[in-house]
Amino acid sequence: MTSDPHAGAVPLVEIRRGPFVESLHRGHAVICNAEGQIVESWGDPDVVILPRSAIKMIQALPLMTSGAGKDLDNRQLALSCASHEGAARHTDLAAAWLESLGLGEADLRCGPQWPSDRAAQTALTKGDTSPCQLHNNCSGKHCGFLTLNKHLGGGPEYILPDHPVQRAVLSAYEETTGETSPGYGIDGCSAPNFASSLKGVARAMAWFASAGQRNDSASTAAVRLVESMRQHPDLVAGEGRACTELMRAMDGVVVKTGADGVFTAILPAQGLGIAVKIADGATRASEALMARLLIRLGVLDARHPAALRRVDHVIKSRRGLEAGLITTVEGL
Amino acid sequence: MTSDPHAGAVPLVEIRRGPFVESLHRGHAVICNAEGQIVESWGDPDVVILPRSAIKMIQALPLMTSGAGKDLDNRQLALSCASHEGAARHTDLAAAWLESLGLGEADLRCGPQWPSDRAAQTALTKGDTSPCQLHNNCSGKHCGFLTLNKHLGGGPEYILPDHPVQRAVLSAYEETTGETSPGYGIDGCSAPNFASSLKGVARAMAWFASAGQRNDSASTAAVRLVESMRQHPDLVAGEGRACTELMRAMDGVVVKTGADGVFTAILPAQGLGIAVKIADGATRASEALMARLLIRLGVLDARHPAALRRVDHVIKSRRGLEAGLITTVEGL
Repeated sequence: MTSDPHAGAVPLVEIRRGPFVESLHRGHAVICNAEGQIVESWGDPDVVILPRSAIKMIQALPLMTSGAGKDLDNRQLALSCASHEGAARHTDLAAAWLESLGLGEADLRCGPQWPSDRAAQTALTKGDTSPCQLHNNCSGKHCGFLTLNKHLGGGPEYILPDHPVQRAVLSAYEETTGETSPGYGIDGCSAPNFASSLKGVARAMAWFASAGQRNDSASTAAVRLVESMRQHPDLVAGEGRACTELMRAMDGVVVKTGADGVFTAILPAQGLGIAVKIADGATRASEALMARLLIRLGVLDARHPAALRRVDHVIKSRRGLEAGLITTVEGL
Repeated sequence: MTSDPHAGAVPLVEIRRGPFVESLHRGHAVICNAEGQIVESWGDPDVVILPRSAIKMIQALPLMTSGAGKDLDNRQLALSCASHEGAARHTDLAAAWLESLGLGEADLRCGPQWPSDRAAQTALTKGDTSPCQLHNNCSGKHCGFLTLNKHLGGGPEYILPDHPVQRAVLSAYEETTGETSPGYGIDGCSAPNFASSLKGVARAMAWFASAGQRNDSASTAAVRLVESMRQHPDLVAGEGRACTELMRAMDGVVVKTGADGVFTAILPAQGLGIAVKIADGATRASEALMARLLIRLGVLDARHPAALRRVDHVIKSRRGLEAGLITTVEGL
């Protein structure tokens, strides 16, 4: 087999059913401080990961540092960092944004996706219509890419890894993680997703968390992006989703999920950054683990419904009988 | 932490993206022969698991051995072993079955569930209606329970662990696995799901596979259930689903998926039984692993589309770009 990058993963999240541990998730987590030092870690902090959508705030950074986004409002910036549900408030905002650029849905390169918002699903089904690229959970990020591209004067294929837009993203990624990226994978939205160590991702989140303590232009851009996400949790994900619910349940902490078991958090008041990767890629586990870490750090109330839907979460049968529990391993 | 039942799990399935192994699934697998001996295994054959829906053919066994199901046809028997999509052909069959018993949807105890069949979803959405218990993927199993219950004269709460129906199921489970069950968990359909070792599940599947070589009444019942599943793969799951597609792609092999990473197979011509449990519970991994084992045993063509949708499966972006691969570890 290919050498296992997750050989150092440790048990972190348990699925209990009756008296049994039915399933178990192994993974890695790192908490970094403003100096980029590891405060605490589980598993292997050096594991190389694809951070997926959990680092969209980094992908949005060149939009601001270049000056391309100077006329954007905080709602647009929140959407540029979003994995949204494709609800009307997301697709309408993306459509208006494209129009303001003199562009349209066909200029996007993210591909169509069925929305996860129930009302949007119902509207499409009842209208016998198909979803378009605006419904793609990454359409806001791609509106940001197109805004940067207009500024840079690049060609229409802004998702190619050597396109000026993606070169700018790579540069921002390497600067904030403090590492040279070893390569990339193609994300679900067809954009390159650059790799780094998990501790590099945590370091980048801590850099965002401490940006208010610095005056350089990149840090000023970071403060604005974090503030935009904090102000508009409904635009970053959607009703019922972990990012939206957890941000609403906390005071100023920003969190962002990514596919295949990645989750990040930015804690400005504490100057801390968190990065989580579940080895097997399970979202139920990355959400449970992130909720537990936020509880441990004292920024999330363990009894808040948003927390209890993720960790120490009671699994019920379809008739509502208590059947099991999603929780973290003892000691966490 | 609770002691980890999956400590002996080994790497089995990789998710690759670009040049990286993005995620990795550990787990266990056992192949048993007609004598109940382990032919080959990976991970820990003694791991205690909840087999979930992967052993519905065992839960249907008392229906036949009791004589309660003597007038049922093979379509009903296939549905009794099914985790179906809630398509019209499934719900119509379940409704007619209940009517033949003088019962109705309200007598089911499986709870309502949104169907995974797209046409059924569309019909419910367009009609502004909610799914009912007939749509529950387990409604056929519960029709079987009700048929047995009518024969036994038990009370209406046939899902209680000490109800005569479930005591009969436990007895069948212990006889076919050759083990005393250490307990149960409540399944998504509210019925008890009895635990055993993974090798016990593989032994039970081998017992089904070799049933045609024996003349006792339980074995005769097993032959009929296997034949019913083989004849009606569309009733056991649904269009696009792993069980349906894999059974259609093979000659006489029966497979059955279960929640949280369980998968079983019955190979009558070879007299072999297979049981798989992915430690983290991922379906993408249990499907990939089962497909690989069936290919290894020479009963599934690696180039068949049904195989290639599960293992050596190309992951594409939403615009259709090749982004990654789901495959098994080297040596498998």
